[in-house]
Amino acid sequence: MRIVILKSLLSQALQTISKAIPTRTTKPILYGVYLEVFATHIQLTAYDQEIGIQTIVHPTDDPEPTLQIEQTGSIVLHAKYLLDIVRKLPHKLVRIDVTDLTATIRSGSATYTLNGMDPREYPHLPSVTEEMSLSMPSNVLISLIEQTAFATATSEIRPTLTGVLFSFVEPQLRFIASDSHRLSIHSIYAETKYSYDKLEAIIPGKSLNELLKILPDSEEFTDIYIADNQLLVTFGATKFYSRLIEGQYPDISRIIPTTWRTAIEVDPKQFTESIERAALLARENENQVIRLYLRRTHIEVTSNSPDIGKVTETIDPISFEGDDLQIACNAKFLLDALKALNNYQVRIEFTSPGSAFILKPTNSDRPLHLILPVRFGPNT
Amino acid sequence: MRIVILKSLLSQALQTISKAIPTRTTKPILYGVYLEVFATHIQLTAYDQEIGIQTIVHPTDDPEPTLQIEQTGSIVLHAKYLLDIVRKLPHKLVRIDVTDLTATIRSGSATYTLNGMDPREYPHLPSVTEEMSLSMPSNVLISLIEQTAFATATSEIRPTLTGVLFSFVEPQLRFIASDSHRLSIHSIYAETKYSYDKLEAIIPGKSLNELLKILPDSEEFTDIYIADNQLLVTFGATKFYSRLIEGQYPDISRIIPTTWRTAIEVDPKQFTESIERAALLARENENQVIRLYLRRTHIEVTSNSPDIGKVTETIDPISFEGDDLQIACNAKFLLDALKALNNYQVRIEFTSPGSAFILKPTNSDRPLHLILPVRFGPNT
Repeated sequence: MRIVILKSLLSQALQTISKAIPTRTTKPILYGVYLEVFATHIQLTAYDQEIGIQTIVHPTDDPEPTLQIEQTGSIVLHAKYLLDIVRKLPHKLVRIDVTDLTATIRSGSATYTLNGMDPREYPHLPSVTEEMSLSMPSNVLISLIEQTAFATATSEIRPTLTGVLFSFVEPQLRFIASDSHRLSIHSIYAETKYSYDKLEAIIPGKSLNELLKILPDSEEFTDIYIADNQLLVTFGATKFYSRLIEGQYPDISRIIPTTWRTAIEVDPKQFTESIERAALLARENENQVIRLYLRRTHIEVTSNSPDIGKVTETIDPISFEGDDLQIACNAKFLLDALKALNNYQVRIEFTSPGSAFILKPTNSDRPLHLILPVRFGPNT
Repeated sequence: MRIVILKSLLSQALQTISKAIPTRTTKPILYGVYLEVFATHIQLTAYDQEIGIQTIVHPTDDPEPTLQIEQTGSIVLHAKYLLDIVRKLPHKLVRIDVTDLTATIRSGSATYTLNGMDPREYPHLPSVTEEMSLSMPSNVLISLIEQTAFATATSEIRPTLTGVLFSFVEPQLRFIASDSHRLSIHSIYAETKYSYDKLEAIIPGKSLNELLKILPDSEEFTDIYIADNQLLVTFGATKFYSRLIEGQYPDISRIIPTTWRTAIEVDPKQFTESIERAALLARENENQVIRLYLRRTHIEVTSNSPDIGKVTETIDPISFEGDDLQIACNAKFLLDALKALNNYQVRIEFTSPGSAFILKPTNSDRPLHLILPVRFGPNT
């Protein structure tokens, strides 16, 4: 194979697929990017056997050449080295020549000779039937992920909780995540070319976080396929694969309270800063506990660390309905939820000091974040 | 004690002294900043018993108050918490009230109550006789440190090599550092109010790196005192103390070659980028070995990693004198020296493949960086 390509174009494609390169593996070929040169385009593939990413680069009609294909062929090259090398090349054009399993990379006065690996040993990407898809703008998919993926469990004790439940009941697509101490839900109306009764899958939170890094923040449409125990998301010239998590996601239908006794509206930025100030003294205790004293006249945010000291801050909510209430919770959970809602005016609904409370936009029921309080004792 | 102070002013003073707060210590009081309020100013002190920093804040005549002193007194407060808290305070003014050993910090609607520690338990800063000083602009001291401190040893096997040799022989002040594989020297003409025969001290490289973080990059004069086995540097309202390293610094007078057989002049930026590209493949081997082939027609920079591949780059030196030569060296040492010299056109003088070579500005003998090559064998 033989190509000449714009450094920036190659660097960007390598950057995209690098999210599927493992940091540690017992199969060295997985450190590689599978580079294929066809007559009309080049294709780069990375697949750590959990996440797979494939992207295509076509020659463009620009007056300056962006990609010239001189000879087809393929090779597997160490992705991390290749990415570092390409980034540092001295000239804006890169020439890659492959003979047998050796790649020669030339740019300006620099010449790299890299040992390649055998493409025949590279694992095949999962085959996903690209028939029935849900379509939505890329930035809508981003919001579904951003509102939920952070709330997945990091511990593997209950594997299903490390994933986000993807649940489509026409015409609504819901994302749900929970680590059993908090729960986040977002939903949208999705277009579909077929009719489903119900489509459910559990997508690893880690995969969605990697997908988030490469999804374009634009109105461009993405297609989502769930089939053959795999997720496939396509956008632009890129395909993103992820395995799904097997198992039954817990039933959360009765967890979300439908009534409340105290409700406040807050400015998320102001409330966030108050919580952050209180959290400074809460970080010493494992659960990062802060307390909220909700009173009609004002809200008090406090935290107490016997060794260091205590902090009290009063804020005026935008509105207050219902009864006075005291509640304690994990500051990080509250900050995560407020960060997710930072574009909204936020309404928080409480039932009792021992019951879950919810945060959501003032004028909408989605996205919704639920947090379980911690017991309000003398030591919290 | 009772003061009101501008948040930014307090934050800056805490930031300055925080360089002398240990990250781990068995004496909890050392986590504290010793805050003293006098009738005319406040003083902050931190001292980890290796480095000590003291800074003073005076009220100014600004129309808006920057510091109001309402009652004198003192307390020791946990520096890291205090710094984090002050940075996040909601209002630009901070009020601090101390009663017994409790500090109340108020700003806007936030109130922190911090447990203090007893000032009587805070260690005294070393007493340094402030008599005989060397004076120089702060940015000159910065250049002395920047040209040398990076070359100190990180291993404690030979403790004197973890320090920079400070050597004043009127009127010249020299800084020398070496980890025994490389050596860096810089010297300047320093003003002194007294006459010394000779003044020598070994200053911990770590201390100088901390000092570098707080020295103003300006023409403002600093005074340097070496006395009582301590270094004291004063600048603006700040005093910086460091212990000295005891022992005899190795004699380096005969290490620096005075003749050469091959000399090149290079553009430091272009040469740095070539070395960085070669170093990409050198990072796998412990000594990060790259080779230089110096030929009258061009210079070749190469590196070889049997597992990954190899790289060759040719560059045209600005000038070339003497014989062709092949030499191998640690890429990091070369990059460190080139980085230190990045404001100069650089001359590199070589004697033989087995002898130390030096880098220095084309038109000057200082700063000078010496590097020992590695043996040029088939495996390098």
